[in-house]
Amino acid sequence: MRSIEGSKIVIVGLGLIGGSLARALKSRNSKCHITGVGRRADILQQALESGSIDAFSTNAQAACQGADIVVLAVPVLSVGDILREIAPVLGSNTIVTDAASVKQHIVDVVHKVFGGIPVNFVPGHPIAGSEQSGFEASSATLFNNRKVILTPLDHTSAEAVSLVSGMWKAAGAQVLQMGVGRHDEVLAATSHLPHLLAFALVDTLSQQGESEEIFRYAAGGLRDFTRIASSDPVMWRDIFLTNAEATVGILDEYVSDLQKLRKNLLAQDGEALIAMFRRANKSRASFLCMLQTTTENPDKP
Amino acid sequence: MRSIEGSKIVIVGLGLIGGSLARALKSRNSKCHITGVGRRADILQQALESGSIDAFSTNAQAACQGADIVVLAVPVLSVGDILREIAPVLGSNTIVTDAASVKQHIVDVVHKVFGGIPVNFVPGHPIAGSEQSGFEASSATLFNNRKVILTPLDHTSAEAVSLVSGMWKAAGAQVLQMGVGRHDEVLAATSHLPHLLAFALVDTLSQQGESEEIFRYAAGGLRDFTRIASSDPVMWRDIFLTNAEATVGILDEYVSDLQKLRKNLLAQDGEALIAMFRRANKSRASFLCMLQTTTENPDKP
Repeated sequence: MRSIEGSKIVIVGLGLIGGSLARALKSRNSKCHITGVGRRADILQQALESGSIDAFSTNAQAACQGADIVVLAVPVLSVGDILREIAPVLGSNTIVTDAASVKQHIVDVVHKVFGGIPVNFVPGHPIAGSEQSGFEASSATLFNNRKVILTPLDHTSAEAVSLVSGMWKAAGAQVLQMGVGRHDEVLAATSHLPHLLAFALVDTLSQQGESEEIFRYAAGGLRDFTRIASSDPVMWRDIFLTNAEATVGILDEYVSDLQKLRKNLLAQDGEALIAMFRRANKSRASFLCMLQTTTENPDKP
Repeated sequence: MRSIEGSKIVIVGLGLIGGSLARALKSRNSKCHITGVGRRADILQQALESGSIDAFSTNAQAACQGADIVVLAVPVLSVGDILREIAPVLGSNTIVTDAASVKQHIVDVVHKVFGGIPVNFVPGHPIAGSEQSGFEASSATLFNNRKVILTPLDHTSAEAVSLVSGMWKAAGAQVLQMGVGRHDEVLAATSHLPHLLAFALVDTLSQQGESEEIFRYAAGGLRDFTRIASSDPVMWRDIFLTNAEATVGILDEYVSDLQKLRKNLLAQDGEALIAMFRRANKSRASFLCMLQTTTENPDKP
């Protein structure tokens, strides 16, 4: 069984996720050789000098030659171009994985580029975002006790899954598995919809007359509620475009629930309101418990 | 000109706001005598022993006899009952203020109880909530650099406004003034709508099949986005029932913006999405700036 020890890992995209993966692996002393690939040599040089990577290149194809594991940590709509660029140099044993927030679209793109899904391709998604982005926001502890979801297909190599899983565990994460479609539905509900709502709320409020004044009277509740509206526009455009159907599905359910709530407000139905708020209190309390609990047997699907 | 030094302050409701006001005044050494009024003697005793108050009573009417300032820090729909109870014992110089999150409803209730708005009634609202509630969540620093909005009427006594303003400043807050109607509109947008959206989102998600599993894969983004869904159900029922019109008004604008966004998702209009996300990034950045900036001349309207 191969281990990540001694393996040559190429991380394409040294932003928040790619940069944090490199930093985490290095700071936790996993003995692998990390090459960072990016467009900006100054940032790559900085990553090298900080000891986060062992080598760098602005050329993904050159960097991927002889790689054991290639991690694609770029916005969703950039994955296809990178795959086309590196495909000619990938060895038969090279494992490719990604860190994108949508999985069906990535699987489709891989299929298009390779004419099928290679057994060594492992779709992955670390649930460890932030409203901040870029290498300067990356951290060696970003993945500590955070979850990484892998969505291998039936024919995906068990060894490849084990190696990618080992890499994320070495970076401090818990690894879980689920199906591609289920992933996209769950993430539409728990991540994509909240981001959409936060972006939209800030935009609605900023269109109010004297919006400066409106924000002047806002406090910590609004600050936290809208934190994710400071997220990277390109990354999120890509996510919404490539998971539009599931996102619109859960958005429609949500808007329908808002309309019921609106009726209760206008009907002055205090009992319905309080029942709903109590349910929400309870659900959020168990959600907080879940966030704090370490998952047992984390890599069993 | 009267000052709060040496004055007898009665705080009705020793929860998050009332308790924090008492603690802040005591810890900042303002030389006033504070009586706490509540229903639970054990909590009042605890407040007394911690030095947050000088005396307590479970009887609002008895406590308000001879008071210089009465602060009503109870849920909106409880304000009327308290006012009716204490009205017979209020002195002609006693100043009454409140801490409710809606102001028109409070003004209407005061009008009903007194047959007009007494010149010594100063409607007020400290913008310093939390998803936590009760005396145990109160803190001497809750109002530090937070804003308190006063919404005096044209005939409200300038001395009464100055004294209430002095009390909140002594507790560490900045004091601002605005009109009653404007307050309710601004707060509907920046506080009431976000709370409604957070309660509703947690409820929508918890109604998904296998909702436990859904929350299992959620991360910090959802935790912060839904923080305010842990807020007190009674307090928020009262706020929504008494500011329903303004809340529904801004909710309708928001839902209409969501529907435009939905169209953009289905039309795969990446340019429209990115333009909106960039606007939201920018608006939130200036909102954060505003939160950090100390307001100049804070009590000028």
